[in-house]
Amino acid sequence: MKITLEKIAALVKGRLEGDGAAVIEGVNNIDAAGAKEITFADEKHFEEASKCGAAAVILPEGEGKVGKPSIYVADVREAFAVLLKTFTPPLSFEKGVSPEAHIGKDVSIGKDVIIMPFAVVDDHAVIGDGVTLYPHTYIGQYAEVGDGSLIYSNVTVREHCRVGKRVIIHSSTVIGSDGFGFTTKDDVHTKVPQVGCVVVEDDVEIGAQVGIDRATTGATVIGHGTKIDNLVHIGHNCRIGANCLIVAQVGISGSTIVGDNVTFGGQTGTVGHIHIGGHSVYAARSGIIGDMPEGVFCSGFPVQPHHDWLRMQAALKKLPDMMKKMKALEKKLAAYEEGKK
Amino acid sequence: MKITLEKIAALVKGRLEGDGAAVIEGVNNIDAAGAKEITFADEKHFEEASKCGAAAVILPEGEGKVGKPSIYVADVREAFAVLLKTFTPPLSFEKGVSPEAHIGKDVSIGKDVIIMPFAVVDDHAVIGDGVTLYPHTYIGQYAEVGDGSLIYSNVTVREHCRVGKRVIIHSSTVIGSDGFGFTTKDDVHTKVPQVGCVVVEDDVEIGAQVGIDRATTGATVIGHGTKIDNLVHIGHNCRIGANCLIVAQVGISGSTIVGDNVTFGGQTGTVGHIHIGGHSVYAARSGIIGDMPEGVFCSGFPVQPHHDWLRMQAALKKLPDMMKKMKALEKKLAAYEEGKK
Amino acid sequence: MKITLEKIAALVKGRLEGDGAAVIEGVNNIDAAGAKEITFADEKHFEEASKCGAAAVILPEGEGKVGKPSIYVADVREAFAVLLKTFTPPLSFEKGVSPEAHIGKDVSIGKDVIIMPFAVVDDHAVIGDGVTLYPHTYIGQYAEVGDGSLIYSNVTVREHCRVGKRVIIHSSTVIGSDGFGFTTKDDVHTKVPQVGCVVVEDDVEIGAQVGIDRATTGATVIGHGTKIDNLVHIGHNCRIGANCLIVAQVGISGSTIVGDNVTFGGQTGTVGHIHIGGHSVYAARSGIIGDMPEGVFCSGFPVQPHHDWLRMQAALKKLPDMMKKMKALEKKLAAYEEGKK
Repeated sequence: MKITLEKIAALVKGRLEGDGAAVIEGVNNIDAAGAKEITFADEKHFEEASKCGAAAVILPEGEGKVGKPSIYVADVREAFAVLLKTFTPPLSFEKGVSPEAHIGKDVSIGKDVIIMPFAVVDDHAVIGDGVTLYPHTYIGQYAEVGDGSLIYSNVTVREHCRVGKRVIIHSSTVIGSDGFGFTTKDDVHTKVPQVGCVVVEDDVEIGAQVGIDRATTGATVIGHGTKIDNLVHIGHNCRIGANCLIVAQVGISGSTIVGDNVTFGGQTGTVGHIHIGGHSVYAARSGIIGDMPEGVFCSGFPVQPHHDWLRMQAALKKLPDMMKKMKALEKKLAAYEEGKK
Repeated sequence: MKITLEKIAALVKGRLEGDGAAVIEGVNNIDAAGAKEITFADEKHFEEASKCGAAAVILPEGEGKVGKPSIYVADVREAFAVLLKTFTPPLSFEKGVSPEAHIGKDVSIGKDVIIMPFAVVDDHAVIGDGVTLYPHTYIGQYAEVGDGSLIYSNVTVREHCRVGKRVIIHSSTVIGSDGFGFTTKDDVHTKVPQVGCVVVEDDVEIGAQVGIDRATTGATVIGHGTKIDNLVHIGHNCRIGANCLIVAQVGISGSTIVGDNVTFGGQTGTVGHIHIGGHSVYAARSGIIGDMPEGVFCSGFPVQPHHDWLRMQAALKKLPDMMKKMKALEKKLAAYEEGKK
Repeated sequence: MKITLEKIAALVKGRLEGDGAAVIEGVNNIDAAGAKEITFADEKHFEEASKCGAAAVILPEGEGKVGKPSIYVADVREAFAVLLKTFTPPLSFEKGVSPEAHIGKDVSIGKDVIIMPFAVVDDHAVIGDGVTLYPHTYIGQYAEVGDGSLIYSNVTVREHCRVGKRVIIHSSTVIGSDGFGFTTKDDVHTKVPQVGCVVVEDDVEIGAQVGIDRATTGATVIGHGTKIDNLVHIGHNCRIGANCLIVAQVGISGSTIVGDNVTFGGQTGTVGHIHIGGHSVYAARSGIIGDMPEGVFCSGFPVQPHHDWLRMQAALKKLPDMMKKMKALEKKLAAYEEGKK
């Protein structure tokens, strides 16, 4: 897409300084914008604006000149948002069920859905109103997807699992794979049937390549409003509270109960069969090995109050020097003893 | 599904106390069961039974009353299993190759297979008897899947790889992606062709989103009966022994040889080109950086005997206080020296 | 495939010692080769050659006998490569767009492509010359895939993302899933629209199950020649330099800028919004929590110079003993003080 600066100024209702005939082909952040792009600068980035590689800059009305074509506006961020929308062609999908999709027997499909080519909705599944299924999604037998949910390509929702309303699931995520449950006798592991399901409540968002295992019996539950990043593992029979934030590569072992509004930093791990109280924050790479109370800020492995972890890390850095001092002290004391004799 | 308590009592051959006309819509664990569900309680959970949210409880014959409709049976767990089966409608798949699947040239397909819509079996592949391929599976050229194996949606088995009998592979797993092998010259990395394959032996189960890389030459091998959890990485040319348990998010670097019956706790990692002896347990998040003997129980990074790791963790907690004591000691000694002069 | 030793000797232009009629069915590494396979041994592995399970061995001309049929050649590795090629039947794909693929409106497709069954190229996408798309790939609206790129099964390239030339993307990888961006008010998280894209530059290789999130605005960039292993997470708005090596299970948080030629060992993690200088190596499981200069070799969490980390680890091992010594010293000093009184 190519637009002249003059037209851009009109779009954002701004005042143009410079060549209105200059052609802009895109919009970008100030540190990445190239010679055919427009960027924006608020007060804090004013100096960068004159040095940056952009062809033109959007500035707050009242600012000075930056040595390149500029458009002065009342609200810089609003103008930027308008341009982002202008330069990003909108997506458009055909409403309805693609004739190339596979719809099983006894399936219920709501109004205004978009079911794309090669999506599979298996027998007895229920698809709510306004649901979007991208290509190569698999919705298993007796599974349900609630109104307004958006499921990207290559996602699997296994049999009997229930996805709520307005849920977003990113590509290659798997809802309802079997839990990791075996009994072991004479070194041989025998599978424990995993006949439960997964319940994903309303307004949850789940990143790419997330694995949420179905319960052995009953349900693995993801509470409403919880947001999960990429490559997260959630074991069977976990119950995650509402409005949690689970950052990338976290692993939550089976049968763990998590309260509401808990944040797990990236690469955090937990053992299974524990209770983790709500309204807490666990820093990246925490290792949680037992029950935890409400309202804590913890880090480390094994996890401890964040303040203690910082103290321990500070002490650790001094450890090699301390070892030396220790030897010196021992020597001194030995010398005293020698002197006494 | 809705069933009266009376019918449930008949199903589990139990003795009903309470309203037989009460309608039950599901079965659940004692801590999760809701007002329309039935649960069960053994001796240990007898007290919970009276407080729980379930509409009715299955109890061992001989127990007292819990204040809600109850069914008394000889074997509580057996009755629970019967009800789970009753309330979970069974899956049903059409035998045969779906006309919407793609079968390549010179493919061999056994008896009693279920090959679902949009599965792809590429040229020269061999599919054994009783194999199930879910939608969007890709079985590459010259690949083999043994009798009775079950491959869920969105799984990839790349060319020349061999999957044994009764293997279960969960969704979005990839068998036989190229190993991570490059030669570097003047900062530029050149791909080393990965012409080997992956051999998955009989009775292996592999979780969702697992990546097992093909060997540079020869085969990456997963030994029979080994069970792998979600999001595990196994590098090229690894040979994993029989009956291992590899918990979620473990990463095993290339050319690592692992003995039989090794358990790797979640998020464990290993360097490559090492031998890890059999019959061992590595606790969660172990970091294995060299050869390991048979029959150990280790943890930590770098890995060490679990008992040493516990000792070290105990000492670490005391470290900041020890630093203080150290300073006090130094001061005291300095004072002595001062006094001597 | 079955070939006599005599024919093999001719293929590799070698001198045969032993039974030329012996039939070989495969080629393998010296420690894995079985009774129907041929292997090779250079000077270093000469002793192993006589003990190994292979039916025959390829040896350097001039070496002695190893007690089994052998073929002597000038360049052992070259001969091995010839045999690997001989025993691995080559793949063969039909040129063109499969009638079972789905091609959207206004799509541009180059020459000599291979687009396999059930691949989806959505509206307005651009596919360059010589591109290969495996089954179940999804190329989103307005997305681009450059000349000669190879995209394996179940890969997703979301809308507006741009993949360069000669790029290889392994199965189940997702390019352009939404970044993990939310604003939180009264414990409720509201999605920040992620309207940017991902740019994968030329000659990049990306492993299986990798997630690279699209930028909030602008682009997440993977620099040319960078190689990424399996199960890696790269957050929104990251800019990864050229010729980096990112080993399995690494997680790079959003808005992190990485220089050229940086190696991240497996399971490394970084916080977001930092600059990591080029030409550096981070050992496995590094935890990078702030800006880093150029040209370092670091490890640990929090990350530190590798040499310091080794010193700290050595000290840590002695910590429990040091605690004991400390107590002994305190006791001694207390005894002195007692004696003084």
